[in-house]
Amino acid sequence: MMSVELNSTANDTGVDAAVAAARRVIAGLVRAGDLSGADMAGIAERLNAVADDLDRDAPDVEDRLVNMWRGDGTTRHDPATGPENPIAPPLTFEGKDDGSIEAEVTLDLPYQGPPASVHGGVSALLLDHTLGVANHWGGAAGMTAELTLRYHRRVPLFRPLTISGRLLSVDGRKIRTAGSISADGEVCVTAEGLFISKDMGRPR
Amino acid sequence: MMSVELNSTANDTGVDAAVAAARRVIAGLVRAGDLSGADMAGIAERLNAVADDLDRDAPDVEDRLVNMWRGDGTTRHDPATGPENPIAPPLTFEGKDDGSIEAEVTLDLPYQGPPASVHGGVSALLLDHTLGVANHWGGAAGMTAELTLRYHRRVPLFRPLTISGRLLSVDGRKIRTAGSISADGEVCVTAEGLFISKDMGRPR
Repeated sequence: MMSVELNSTANDTGVDAAVAAARRVIAGLVRAGDLSGADMAGIAERLNAVADDLDRDAPDVEDRLVNMWRGDGTTRHDPATGPENPIAPPLTFEGKDDGSIEAEVTLDLPYQGPPASVHGGVSALLLDHTLGVANHWGGAAGMTAELTLRYHRRVPLFRPLTISGRLLSVDGRKIRTAGSISADGEVCVTAEGLFISKDMGRPR
Repeated sequence: MMSVELNSTANDTGVDAAVAAARRVIAGLVRAGDLSGADMAGIAERLNAVADDLDRDAPDVEDRLVNMWRGDGTTRHDPATGPENPIAPPLTFEGKDDGSIEAEVTLDLPYQGPPASVHGGVSALLLDHTLGVANHWGGAAGMTAELTLRYHRRVPLFRPLTISGRLLSVDGRKIRTAGSISADGEVCVTAEGLFISKDMGRPR
């Protein structure tokens, strides 16, 4: 087993707790639509008050752009796994001895495309990120140059999905990686990525 | 000009106003990270209270799944354009006489991949959706079968992006569509999609 850090640990306190609560609000709003009996004008007011408080105490964006890239390990802010990003479902990866990585996740209404199914673009988002983490787990790192997704069957909402990735080859600066999303033991989406090895130049 | 509806109109009231406020909260939390002076425990409590209120008054998910697909026009809940979805930036499309569609959008920290750049998977999400709307504008509709993305240069955060799509051809059930994301007049990402014409069977 390699000792590569695959996930940022989510905390029960601080911004992570607020982000977890924000995910509940996102899911609740999409579930509500215009069918809910909730006082939406009041909820808008309460959410705007939270946003006002966050804005008042916000760090400079330049400072935050250095802070969020500190160290050389996993980041905490990305839209697929980040404990500091309410958009992230979030994915949590497990590294396998066979060189692959895997995450299990169940997606709710905010990620819907076709009825009761995951949006094809959300599958693309999660697979692109998974391929990048698979590269990291395999000891490579690069920028996405080309990504091809094949949609074999609908990806269901509300059911556990297995998202996996595996580094296939490194040839000079070219990194090739594959991944898939499965549900109920059947492959729904497959992805192939070509990445170009590159120092991504974290802001310091 | 065809009279195809390309966008759902966002309201200033009701759930749309709450969703707009939730987008401010999402952006504020990712901007804050652990650098903010805001009372995060208090914010978590306030957001959980909003989520509790939404949960208490939530419609049955089966009812909502019919409600959110009512009619045959654009939906209001999708994660790219939906006025009822806080994850959506949101995109608003303009139909062009040359058969293409176009949206202008500026993305903030929640959509970050490489430093100060849009996540490759977010570009994929927005392009997949744009290609679907381009099909609609061109009089076709189908499920994504294959999507290929080529990343030519980084897509900047904080700057206006132009996202465009165009139906290329319909051959039997095969629909081919292309799109791109540009910034400052330069093409950053291109997409090609193969869609299969299919009745998506809205829940009734």
